[in-house]
Amino acid sequence: MELTTLEAVRALRVDGGRLWQSLMDLARIGATDKGGVCRLALTDLDRQARDRVTAWARELGCSVRVDAIGNIFMRRAGMREDLPPVMTGSHIDTQPTGGKFDGNYGVLAGIEVLRTLCDRGLRTEAPIEVVVWTNEEGSRFVPVMMGSGVHARAFTLEHALAARDRDGVSVAEALRAIGYDGAEPVGGRAAAAYFEAHIEQGPILESEDIVIGAVAGALGQRWYDVVITGQEAHAGPTPMALRRDALLAASDLVRAVNRIAQDHAPHGRGTVGCLDVFPNSRNVIPGRVSLTVDLRAADDATLDGMARALARACGELEQGGAFEVSCKEVVYFAPQPFDAALVQAVRDGAASLGLDSLDIISGAGHDAVYMARVAPTAMIFVPCKDGISHNEIEDARPEHLEAGCNVLLHAMLRCCGRVEAAEEARA
Amino acid sequence: MELTTLEAVRALRVDGGRLWQSLMDLARIGATDKGGVCRLALTDLDRQARDRVTAWARELGCSVRVDAIGNIFMRRAGMREDLPPVMTGSHIDTQPTGGKFDGNYGVLAGIEVLRTLCDRGLRTEAPIEVVVWTNEEGSRFVPVMMGSGVHARAFTLEHALAARDRDGVSVAEALRAIGYDGAEPVGGRAAAAYFEAHIEQGPILESEDIVIGAVAGALGQRWYDVVITGQEAHAGPTPMALRRDALLAASDLVRAVNRIAQDHAPHGRGTVGCLDVFPNSRNVIPGRVSLTVDLRAADDATLDGMARALARACGELEQGGAFEVSCKEVVYFAPQPFDAALVQAVRDGAASLGLDSLDIISGAGHDAVYMARVAPTAMIFVPCKDGISHNEIEDARPEHLEAGCNVLLHAMLRCCGRVEAAEEARA
Repeated sequence: MELTTLEAVRALRVDGGRLWQSLMDLARIGATDKGGVCRLALTDLDRQARDRVTAWARELGCSVRVDAIGNIFMRRAGMREDLPPVMTGSHIDTQPTGGKFDGNYGVLAGIEVLRTLCDRGLRTEAPIEVVVWTNEEGSRFVPVMMGSGVHARAFTLEHALAARDRDGVSVAEALRAIGYDGAEPVGGRAAAAYFEAHIEQGPILESEDIVIGAVAGALGQRWYDVVITGQEAHAGPTPMALRRDALLAASDLVRAVNRIAQDHAPHGRGTVGCLDVFPNSRNVIPGRVSLTVDLRAADDATLDGMARALARACGELEQGGAFEVSCKEVVYFAPQPFDAALVQAVRDGAASLGLDSLDIISGAGHDAVYMARVAPTAMIFVPCKDGISHNEIEDARPEHLEAGCNVLLHAMLRCCGRVEAAEEARA
Repeated sequence: MELTTLEAVRALRVDGGRLWQSLMDLARIGATDKGGVCRLALTDLDRQARDRVTAWARELGCSVRVDAIGNIFMRRAGMREDLPPVMTGSHIDTQPTGGKFDGNYGVLAGIEVLRTLCDRGLRTEAPIEVVVWTNEEGSRFVPVMMGSGVHARAFTLEHALAARDRDGVSVAEALRAIGYDGAEPVGGRAAAAYFEAHIEQGPILESEDIVIGAVAGALGQRWYDVVITGQEAHAGPTPMALRRDALLAASDLVRAVNRIAQDHAPHGRGTVGCLDVFPNSRNVIPGRVSLTVDLRAADDATLDGMARALARACGELEQGGAFEVSCKEVVYFAPQPFDAALVQAVRDGAASLGLDSLDIISGAGHDAVYMARVAPTAMIFVPCKDGISHNEIEDARPEHLEAGCNVLLHAMLRCCGRVEAAEEARA
């Protein structure tokens, strides 16, 4: 690379206004009255959004390939097409009451990286691919993170294609209906690196007033279904001492789950998200409570310690014989560390732009978590307002989105090998 | 009264087998597969049960009068018809999944008292009336304790007649349909005494191994609707320290309600019966919890103290600004002491039969609680299995029901003035 080109690369910045405009344009497809987006996977709205994004990629001279689960790979050729591509991307399906940024930002940040390179006539040694993963949200079809999950062999293509929505429509049928049942085989594509830019979906960056999160991995998760059985009884005639109030026991467990997480700081999380009371009648002492427990930690040793503490808390409720407690694990996701070199590339990219970055462990699942099983992977987080997502009021600041996109650009360029002006490459 | 008659009265006992048979006969009307009874107020099943009970009364020579809210007064004439009657009774409507004894026992114990007097050819100076109150349960029409409530002027006849079930049928229409829209005015009937025999619907007698509860009054009640608002957030990315978990706050309130009741022993009761979580999703930190609080105490000073403690507990949740708590009182029933002389008549009646009795404050509502507003009133409790009622598995032992009925007989006779053999009375 000539010095002039090196300097040009260092000075390279994305067009934040253009990125924002693309986000707003895409958000019109499935826009809700409250300013959010409802664009469920493999609906016609999803098709419209896919058509829009792929049209933008084609305008940049990219090839577009679709695999059998509907994942879209938009490829900008490299100087050496024999090299594995440097990839980035995310998803463009949303929750039923979703926002404009979750997923969409990662895809459009990738498009903006391509546009920036095209603007300056820069070519990269390795090809660059921007990917749209199918059905990350899982709102219409489970499992969630479906496209990246099949790609990473977390489950089979057949399993995913057979999943049906509430109306009985299968993924296979829905893919055919929107014309995204692609010809490419799923997975088996080598990648030099995979980056994913995403809003944090949490409050840490905002509370720390830092714009860039260098995501070092994803928390492991263990989910449980718990049922506490006591004795339903009339609230009036039953003295306090003779009660077996399942809700009182459940309240102790809610408190215990919280304490277990706090005892496993800084990354421990413990949440009771669902709780249902039976018979749920004003003047009847609850006889049974069903609840869910969601435990998360950055490493398996910690997660296992939390699981043992939960089992002890359930056992303590059973002491004395007033309650029966059943606690069944229903989901396990292993903690997923990201690639150390790529996480460093994110930190370095931020530093080269004069931005502070904070190491974060992602608490949520992302396509990147599956990608990390088959390719060197890292993520870039930017703040979202009040840490809120999966909500129509999800919001993010244009300058943060721009900064995250610049970090993405420079982290990717660190993995792309030589960068040359188009004239040099042609020469 | 001749000595021979006095001795005969002292030796008088009900026929426990006949009482049990009548309970079982009545329980066939609306019998459920699980051994319970579903006989909602003012349905055709209710009509069948009313017809059966009034037929039994007529066989004993009783007059039967029905008032405008469908209350049935089955009267055995006294030697002096100018005296106010000694009354007993209860209800024969049930919960949708009700038992054989709740209410039915009080009515059929009254019938058994009449049968016993008829068997021996005994007449009483004061008339005796056995009453069936309309719609005590409130399962189909609210307000609950409707017939006795109108009788005691707790609310108006018009209000009660206008109440509609889920299908839009009014009480007035339902009464007409079953032919129990009586001609008698509601209320304004003098009564020398009102006794009500009832299963305890609680575990105290069983746990103390005592057969007779001398019910000295009914707990006052204050009911509340509470809403706790925190901040809904994603369970994964939100660190414990930055959460505003409404369910965690609600758990503290459940615990506080329990403690408040225990701090106001022996009669204090505190129950959270309903609790609903929003959005109630496994991996979302609850943003809002709605719950009900039911506080009960034997006197207003205690009940007010509990209400203040609840307000303080809600205030403590709001400390720090993470939560907003709304707590609205929706129901108040004043504590209702029963008539001291009649409660003593129950104790004496038990003692005369060689039975231990235990003073109890009723935790539940009963027709007797309204009757106590307009007539000297007391209740007799007998144990029910495991304290369970409002349930198809509700159960009671024949010998306990018989003992309670004997206490009812002798407590009533203490209020009836002279008792004479029919021949004496004719002489």
